Amino acid sequence: MNIRMTVYILGLLMMFEAVFMAVPSVTAVIYHEQQLWLFAAIALFCLICGWLMTLAKPERKNLSARDGFLIVALSWIVLSVFGALPFYISGCIPHFVDALFESVSGFTTTGASILHEVESLPRCMLMWRSFTHWVGGMGVLVFIMAFLPISGGQNMYLMKAESPGPSVSKLVPRVRTTAIWLYGIYFVLTLIEFILLAFGDMSVFDALNIAVATAGTGGFAVTNASMGSYTPYSQVVVTVFMILFSINFTSYFLLLKKKPKESFNTEVKVFLGIVTFAIVTISLDIRHMYRTVSETVRHAAFTVGSLISTTGFGTEDFDRWPSYARTLLVMLMFIGACAGSTGGGIKVSRIVIFFKNMHNELRVMTHPRQVKKVKMDGRQVEGEVIRTIHVYLACYLLTCVVSILILSLDGHDLTTNFTAVVATLNNIGPGLNLVGPTSNYDVFSTCSKCVLIFDMLAGRLELFPIILLLSPATWKK
Amino acid sequence: MNIRMTVYILGLLMMFEAVFMAVPSVTAVIYHEQQLWLFAAIALFCLICGWLMTLAKPERKNLSARDGFLIVALSWIVLSVFGALPFYISGCIPHFVDALFESVSGFTTTGASILHEVESLPRCMLMWRSFTHWVGGMGVLVFIMAFLPISGGQNMYLMKAESPGPSVSKLVPRVRTTAIWLYGIYFVLTLIEFILLAFGDMSVFDALNIAVATAGTGGFAVTNASMGSYTPYSQVVVTVFMILFSINFTSYFLLLKKKPKESFNTEVKVFLGIVTFAIVTISLDIRHMYRTVSETVRHAAFTVGSLISTTGFGTEDFDRWPSYARTLLVMLMFIGACAGSTGGGIKVSRIVIFFKNMHNELRVMTHPRQVKKVKMDGRQVEGEVIRTIHVYLACYLLTCVVSILILSLDGHDLTTNFTAVVATLNNIGPGLNLVGPTSNYDVFSTCSKCVLIFDMLAGRLELFPIILLLSPATWKK
Repeated sequence: MNIRMTVYILGLLMMFEAVFMAVPSVTAVIYHEQQLWLFAAIALFCLICGWLMTLAKPERKNLSARDGFLIVALSWIVLSVFGALPFYISGCIPHFVDALFESVSGFTTTGASILHEVESLPRCMLMWRSFTHWVGGMGVLVFIMAFLPISGGQNMYLMKAESPGPSVSKLVPRVRTTAIWLYGIYFVLTLIEFILLAFGDMSVFDALNIAVATAGTGGFAVTNASMGSYTPYSQVVVTVFMILFSINFTSYFLLLKKKPKESFNTEVKVFLGIVTFAIVTISLDIRHMYRTVSETVRHAAFTVGSLISTTGFGTEDFDRWPSYARTLLVMLMFIGACAGSTGGGIKVSRIVIFFKNMHNELRVMTHPRQVKKVKMDGRQVEGEVIRTIHVYLACYLLTCVVSILILSLDGHDLTTNFTAVVATLNNIGPGLNLVGPTSNYDVFSTCSKCVLIFDMLAGRLELFPIILLLSPATWKK
Repeated sequence: MNIRMTVYILGLLMMFEAVFMAVPSVTAVIYHEQQLWLFAAIALFCLICGWLMTLAKPERKNLSARDGFLIVALSWIVLSVFGALPFYISGCIPHFVDALFESVSGFTTTGASILHEVESLPRCMLMWRSFTHWVGGMGVLVFIMAFLPISGGQNMYLMKAESPGPSVSKLVPRVRTTAIWLYGIYFVLTLIEFILLAFGDMSVFDALNIAVATAGTGGFAVTNASMGSYTPYSQVVVTVFMILFSINFTSYFLLLKKKPKESFNTEVKVFLGIVTFAIVTISLDIRHMYRTVSETVRHAAFTVGSLISTTGFGTEDFDRWPSYARTLLVMLMFIGACAGSTGGGIKVSRIVIFFKNMHNELRVMTHPRQVKKVKMDGRQVEGEVIRTIHVYLACYLLTCVVSILILSLDGHDLTTNFTAVVATLNNIGPGLNLVGPTSNYDVFSTCSKCVLIFDMLAGRLELFPIILLLSPATWKK
């Protein structure tokens, strides 16, 4: 492993984290909150550590695929640990594991909380919570790469390990330009949402928080009622943007390059198809619970958008909805967003390739002479991509099973444990029963919280970086 | 498709079904039950139909892999429909779908029932219910092959499609001799269990019923309390035999051939490892619920054996057990028995190969130059086997998801729907909540029952035959 390069990148990361803390610091200045000094102190500490770590410039800059995975895994752990310090030192969250849970939940854009109520938190803390979503959504290393040339052209592995989806499409040949494009689109979309929300009933503070939390498909809200306390206008705006942020950013790039046909690809079509199917059938299922059609469709669309985008905002307690609606919502949690978006879950393209391959193999069974390859958008899907998807699903399954088994030691019911693991591993937030939209994750023991922290990180980084970091085989010669 | 050959085999099957009905007929004679005439009439009808269908001997006897799948699927449907007639015509089960559910549940060795209580049924009906388990356990076409040479050496495809597991191991080069060996071992083991049970507290009738139901890993009992009404001795005997019938029959064959090393292979080791782990940890989890250690271990062992073997007998209502025990039991339901046994589920060898492959691919990610093949018992696992396992799991997942979604329309809770699908698709019987060990499947609508009938058949035949039968692509030129 290239240790010097790893230390150098982690140093850069800590300096950037110090810069990120300017956002809550400014918030503290505006609202005259005393936590300003806390954020300033932690930022200064990060800055000094980071500066010391970047003093020795590495001579050998090239990274292997394995280095890419490990650096990404370590970066996210360092980011989360230092991100938890403001919550812990300020006393807002008295236990460190809880503070780490909240921080990991923020950066991984899960939005699961151990807080019983959020409205009593200082505004700078709320801003920090929401802002972690924005940083984590598109990826912190991608952010650094947009500003600095990290390594000599070898940083594709870093982007590959941090970006979600079965295959990373570089928008342009240069990794750094790709990173700039991605963050550019991300920033502009966030800005539009912020303006639309600020023009509605929201205060500027609320609009900013909700906008960055939607952009990262996170789900931390600034009121206990999540999105339930805002007007239907705001709810509709957030619904639309949750879905927009779940679409592969390559599609927006292609749209800007005036290639609408390539932009509207199979994954986007299937994703929008699933969203439409879910909204229509759930609306039919819950129609007796609301007075008007528009109210029914609004709640159905918001909840569908919130869960398939893995944001996790709520307007309604969907745990009270009928069986079909709840079952379908749990399934949407697994599916998740498009690859290359800020959303989590298994990703639509993985599922499409998985079932296309199944269909193909079934045909081979009955018509052995008609061997065909799996195709997507006219291009042949390489065997390696299919194999990696199978390994991904195997790791996913194993993580699920082991996590649920450990959680069950706390004695809660099956639905609680199952949906808690699903909601963290897919970076959603709320589950059902004890972890439903109106509850929180404080019901679990410290051991279970650690498992869920692992699940959130594993889910955001799509398993391999975290699994390889913990695998003894990685560290053998 | 070889239609003449298909009709011929289905004709043979109906004649054999008529012969099977001799068992309940004899029972009716012994207990002077009036249903004797009913069984005799149905048997006669089957015999005549079968005879007519076998009149035209097919000239072309060779079958393709696809023919194998389709004939097996059709055979099981015909078998189940005619097997349901005694229940329906006698009025014991007034609705035909319910009667078909009971018959499919019997032949597929699921053991899920729509009957609220079984003790009022005539003894010949109870015997028929239990005996369907025995016929379905090892497979009806395998049974026919043991007696008749069906086709010119091409019947390997039939055996492949009907026998459970990722790869069928022929014990001896000739398929017919293999079938005779399998049924020989099956018969002798059943006989030993019957003798052991009859020497205990059971009546001869009960012992015979329980023995054949254990042998097929079915789970239909003759008392409402399932196995709870018998002595600990009988429960221990049944526990041991449920586990014995879950082990690959090839192992017994190799043991008889004095090859103990080959007999005790990876799959058997992993299977026994899982059983031991589950018994120990569940015993610890439920220790406060029972007075003595032996009572605790007995109930834990019985339930673990019952669920991993996919038999589904009960001594205790495990739905009342703590969260960990229930969670682990649900996981055992998925795992199931060894390949080539009479048990259902995904099968231990599939899971072992699946995770071995995952481990292998993960290593390739970190050490790309050390490409190794997946091995099992010293032999390389062919790529085709791994690919088929992935397709199998994809079909399995899809069947699960669609079934649960349709069941959710009935409005029952998530755990009920989830475990109902798991318990039928894996041919177990009892699930949790509304389909728990003390309840039955009559809570579902007719539509849901049809879905569960599909799941039982798909589960027993390991998906492909039933999926191919229903796939439009199969019927295209």
